[in-house]
Amino acid sequence: MSEPLRIGLLGHGTVGAAFAELLDERAEEIERFNGRAPVITGVLTRSRGEFAEILDDADLIVEVMGGIEPARTYLLEAIRAGRDVVSANKQLLSQHGEELFELAREQDVRLRFEAAVAGAVPVVRLLEESLAATPIERIHGIVNGTTNYILSEMARGSTYPEALAQAQRLGYAEADPSDDVSGRDAAAKMAILARLAFGAPVHLEDVPYEGIEQLQSDDLEYARELGLGLKLIGTAERRDGGLSVRVYPAFLYAGHPLSSVSGPFNAVTVESEAITEITMSGPGAGGLQTASAVLGDVVSVMTGGARPPAPPLQLRLLEDVPSAFYLHLDVTDEPGVLAAVTRVLGEHDVSIRSVVQRGLGERARLVMVTHSVPESRLRAAIAELERFEFVRSTPRTICVIEEEFV
Amino acid sequence: MSEPLRIGLLGHGTVGAAFAELLDERAEEIERFNGRAPVITGVLTRSRGEFAEILDDADLIVEVMGGIEPARTYLLEAIRAGRDVVSANKQLLSQHGEELFELAREQDVRLRFEAAVAGAVPVVRLLEESLAATPIERIHGIVNGTTNYILSEMARGSTYPEALAQAQRLGYAEADPSDDVSGRDAAAKMAILARLAFGAPVHLEDVPYEGIEQLQSDDLEYARELGLGLKLIGTAERRDGGLSVRVYPAFLYAGHPLSSVSGPFNAVTVESEAITEITMSGPGAGGLQTASAVLGDVVSVMTGGARPPAPPLQLRLLEDVPSAFYLHLDVTDEPGVLAAVTRVLGEHDVSIRSVVQRGLGERARLVMVTHSVPESRLRAAIAELERFEFVRSTPRTICVIEEEFV
Repeated sequence: MSEPLRIGLLGHGTVGAAFAELLDERAEEIERFNGRAPVITGVLTRSRGEFAEILDDADLIVEVMGGIEPARTYLLEAIRAGRDVVSANKQLLSQHGEELFELAREQDVRLRFEAAVAGAVPVVRLLEESLAATPIERIHGIVNGTTNYILSEMARGSTYPEALAQAQRLGYAEADPSDDVSGRDAAAKMAILARLAFGAPVHLEDVPYEGIEQLQSDDLEYARELGLGLKLIGTAERRDGGLSVRVYPAFLYAGHPLSSVSGPFNAVTVESEAITEITMSGPGAGGLQTASAVLGDVVSVMTGGARPPAPPLQLRLLEDVPSAFYLHLDVTDEPGVLAAVTRVLGEHDVSIRSVVQRGLGERARLVMVTHSVPESRLRAAIAELERFEFVRSTPRTICVIEEEFV
Repeated sequence: MSEPLRIGLLGHGTVGAAFAELLDERAEEIERFNGRAPVITGVLTRSRGEFAEILDDADLIVEVMGGIEPARTYLLEAIRAGRDVVSANKQLLSQHGEELFELAREQDVRLRFEAAVAGAVPVVRLLEESLAATPIERIHGIVNGTTNYILSEMARGSTYPEALAQAQRLGYAEADPSDDVSGRDAAAKMAILARLAFGAPVHLEDVPYEGIEQLQSDDLEYARELGLGLKLIGTAERRDGGLSVRVYPAFLYAGHPLSSVSGPFNAVTVESEAITEITMSGPGAGGLQTASAVLGDVVSVMTGGARPPAPPLQLRLLEDVPSAFYLHLDVTDEPGVLAAVTRVLGEHDVSIRSVVQRGLGERARLVMVTHSVPESRLRAAIAELERFEFVRSTPRTICVIEEEFV
């Protein structure tokens, strides 16, 4: 009989408590498979426990506190002391990942953070291991379950405030939902995925993000009419020798693997020439799902995997990438409007694929879909359009993700 | 600079050639990440190479020959000689898996076989590692791309022979497609997945399978009308303390994660209380996808994962599990038929959820969906129905997979 694997647990909120319970339930089975049983030898909460003692008694530190400090200091100390580390902390990894990875490589400790992205959906492992031999071209992800739930409800007819309130009632959204609905939470996760898929260090602050607060029921109606899904998408892709990472609401064509993902789910599609595309989906971060991912990481450390990511590559981060756009204009219904709009777009080399004008009494709604165009060029055209008196409210744009593999 | 990892490659058909090419392309990148470059030091084909020599020169044996012998003998010899092993051979693993696993455990070598199931979709790894800490309840899989392609074409209006011919033209089906269309190929893969998910040794011959040859365009029409997907499904599930593993055509409700998987794709849904459900999908086994999975396995051996499965548990294999069924009867359109049919079903405790009768001149089509019923009971009822003169052709049944997580 081998010695048990001693675990120091930092944090005992929803995830920490669920982890401790799941570990109890599964310890025997894990021992049967791996020859060692995991046991929790210390727990640190705000009110009890002493980090130095917990570290002394542990082979492995599991961090589920969240936030930057003191989690960062504790993990660095644990790694310096030669302990293996499992963390579920997306804030920390998206802002101080390189520091942790570098120290973990120096100290030759194992480091795993599956639960930091997409809950129980093992996308970190997919990128780190299964696709380690595959040059990845692009990742599209729905990596925030709260916003995906809200958009699913809006697609069924709710307004944004109604859907948000419902998400809060069900525990899918926090009292202050701004991290989720602004896209910042998704941006942190995309920074982590981009690092794993492309090897380049991507800091949370490098990822431009746009949330779902500006979306209108109109936009979802339009999506429904055209059979498109409207999702908050994170993209990380290789382009022109650089890397683009961003989060934005997007229309997806009906057959896209992410367009049928609804409710508080997460899903990630990885594209590569060798594999075409692989999609993984599952529930976003609930306490039990996250705990299950953390325990999977613990097992992975026990079986000897879980090497820290390799030293970073340098890749230029691109800011202005081309995309097709949906453009929504609220205009006065008078002669010459469409001609003026198309002239301005043409002058900025924004080429139009389809246009629908719908009269609404003395106003009209003008909905266009462009061909692929650098975002900066579209923004310049819109700035000019906004100067027309017949444009009655701020124009809205939404990316359109088109079919590539047919 | 570390020594390279020397690979002996057994088999140089489509997959072997693609593997050798991919390895060349990726060797530098793999070395950057893992500190060692993989190199092929020997290749065995039908016409060239000597196994003993190749073994001598290799640290790792990659087997992509297929078939039972001589692959089995070679792999056992390699493991006995202490070599790590990667195989893409589903026939071998579903029929002699335990023998290989046991020897690999004894010799403490690494063993990996991601490419044997679902091509580039890393479901083996998902079960072996990510979900190692999670008690799995059920797996549903579309694990044969050929049949999924044929069914997708039939859903678009092709007949079975047309769709099969088209699959053969595109290289999705072999000249002799019987292994695929009979369900036997899927049964081999489900045997492997069941072993990984539930720990019980499942031999290919333990898996009852039914293919798609008997399906009629009628059935797909019915699926379309009701918004159901018709797929060839493999199921492995824990039930009443036992295990059921089987392959069969099934109707899936529209929201099921597998119902939107079309074309030559594979997808697997894993259900568990802790994680609800995780679905992975991607292209089935093309040469390049399989080669990519094999190379992923090589990397996984290099990073120190890839332990062989733990010793088997004993679980009773169940044969007669309950399910809802679609029942299609071709009858003479005369009074009293429906009454007689429902009486016979009632006598066998087969309870009916919905029934549609459609007149077609002097014949009628009677389509029923039952509540969940053990298959043996439905078969007994059908045997009795077949004795009626008004039943004009052999009744057809198809499983119905219903929504569980709502």
